[in-house]
Amino acid sequence: MAVYTDINEGDLGAFLADYDVGELQSYRGIAEGVENSNFLVHTTAGQFILTLYEKRVNRDDLPFFLGLMQHLATRGISCPLPVERRDGAILGELCGRPAAMVTFLEGIWLRRPQPVHCAEVGRGLAEMHLAGEGFALTRGNSLTLADWRPLWTKAKDHADAIDPDLVGETETLLDRLEAEWPRTLPQGVIHADLFPDNVFFLGDALSGFIDFYFACNDAFAYDVAVCLNAWCFERDHAFNLTKARAMLKAYNAVRPLAPAEAEALPILSAGAALRFMLTRLYDWVMTPEGSLVVKKDPLEYLAKMRFHMGVKSAREYGL
Amino acid sequence: MAVYTDINEGDLGAFLADYDVGELQSYRGIAEGVENSNFLVHTTAGQFILTLYEKRVNRDDLPFFLGLMQHLATRGISCPLPVERRDGAILGELCGRPAAMVTFLEGIWLRRPQPVHCAEVGRGLAEMHLAGEGFALTRGNSLTLADWRPLWTKAKDHADAIDPDLVGETETLLDRLEAEWPRTLPQGVIHADLFPDNVFFLGDALSGFIDFYFACNDAFAYDVAVCLNAWCFERDHAFNLTKARAMLKAYNAVRPLAPAEAEALPILSAGAALRFMLTRLYDWVMTPEGSLVVKKDPLEYLAKMRFHMGVKSAREYGL
Repeated sequence: MAVYTDINEGDLGAFLADYDVGELQSYRGIAEGVENSNFLVHTTAGQFILTLYEKRVNRDDLPFFLGLMQHLATRGISCPLPVERRDGAILGELCGRPAAMVTFLEGIWLRRPQPVHCAEVGRGLAEMHLAGEGFALTRGNSLTLADWRPLWTKAKDHADAIDPDLVGETETLLDRLEAEWPRTLPQGVIHADLFPDNVFFLGDALSGFIDFYFACNDAFAYDVAVCLNAWCFERDHAFNLTKARAMLKAYNAVRPLAPAEAEALPILSAGAALRFMLTRLYDWVMTPEGSLVVKKDPLEYLAKMRFHMGVKSAREYGL
Repeated sequence: MAVYTDINEGDLGAFLADYDVGELQSYRGIAEGVENSNFLVHTTAGQFILTLYEKRVNRDDLPFFLGLMQHLATRGISCPLPVERRDGAILGELCGRPAAMVTFLEGIWLRRPQPVHCAEVGRGLAEMHLAGEGFALTRGNSLTLADWRPLWTKAKDHADAIDPDLVGETETLLDRLEAEWPRTLPQGVIHADLFPDNVFFLGDALSGFIDFYFACNDAFAYDVAVCLNAWCFERDHAFNLTKARAMLKAYNAVRPLAPAEAEALPILSAGAALRFMLTRLYDWVMTPEGSLVVKKDPLEYLAKMRFHMGVKSAREYGL
């Protein structure tokens, strides 16, 4: 929730001169996104989101992220469409940072999603998985099993102070994940971060997906597991079976999960919970006091890890 | 630069139901304003700024601020116009806070204003001073001479750590202001905080004023003095006579400064510099580490205090 880089009107004018978007009418920093600086830019041609990619984003990954949005948008998935510059490029530079403009997507993200919205997300996720087929670029998941133990090693010394059970439970789960992680599930392009703030709705209908900056090639069912974690728990960390059932049913109606995918959901979900616990823990520990970033509580995901470790069968998710 | 209060879709929907603004299309927190939470709201009827007034704003002052915007807008001054609810009120409540919606104003604020823009500000400021005539409500300046010493008393213990000369120079200036402050200058409604981020431009033309939350009844020439401080110094704190001359000439062309007002400019400008040094110092000292607020450097205004204390006549401002 921050704007890391302010832009002056001279630099912005020079940047926009490379685009065919008319005259600048206004630009405002948006208090969204913890990785990059985002501005809502209004020109005589319409509204756009301008993103300046800050250090945490690897510049080499940007063609994958932006190309994927183009690929999906041309296949009927509602997502921001990168605007081409006059020279055909979709990536420019502003204030010494890589920068891109995408079309503005109407819709609001839901602070309190209901089962009907979880069904929309399930359907939309399956459609996105199918639409990703044929995308020419590939990108490995940089936050998958192999990355979790190194991340844990860096942060574990601080874990005890947060919760006395965190160290033991994390190491038990890590051991189990390393032994049992499924490696032969159907793969493709996944979003990998489809939290409520990355999904827009108009009324009860899904109006689009945003923020593809964790997208990668990985198991489709892992993306489903991320969504189970992100959408199907209540504020008190209780699992909401109605939401999960709605999501999985809607996903299955578009892209039926194979038996091996369904069977893997508990371990994939436990892994996804660990992944978000780890990055939150790491940010909790490493973010200096006084930073503009709002830190998210890692313990929310310890509760989810515990839940998934106790799940015996995908039927417990409502499948 | 923050959003203090997040809004969920249910609360926002209920709030908007009191307005005749069509269907909600999107809302985004804006990274602007250090006092309140601001959202850009897009409905089928247009774009609006929704402001939630946080603790620092006195609820009793809101009718003055919002009424003033209505008054000025109907007299041809370009500023946000409060949107009336179906019941005719312009103030509602959202998330337990007073809240109002105003029309969205196109334009950008200039990070690097040039003399041509200072002239626009001078002209617009004079027009605003004239247009304020006849506004029925009044509000005293809550950050004027009488308030400065109490503020100084609260913050001075920390001033030495910031600059060893700060204590002595501030006390010398405070003594002088208390002895010489002009009290019989022409008064009316003033903006009192007309910094570059509160003035929008389209190209080189002024497109409007925003943020009337320090507006009050006080000497017109004090408003001019605030603008001299806010617009006519460079980043290295050097006074830019060309900008000041452009601003004052344009102001004078619309509302000629009386001889007593011109004569008072040096002491009013020194007072205005002290006022912003004091609030910055106070915020510097009182804002907890880890806050989302970006602290502004009080020493910028120590440099301006010094400059104005050395000015012998308004001619040195280009008058």
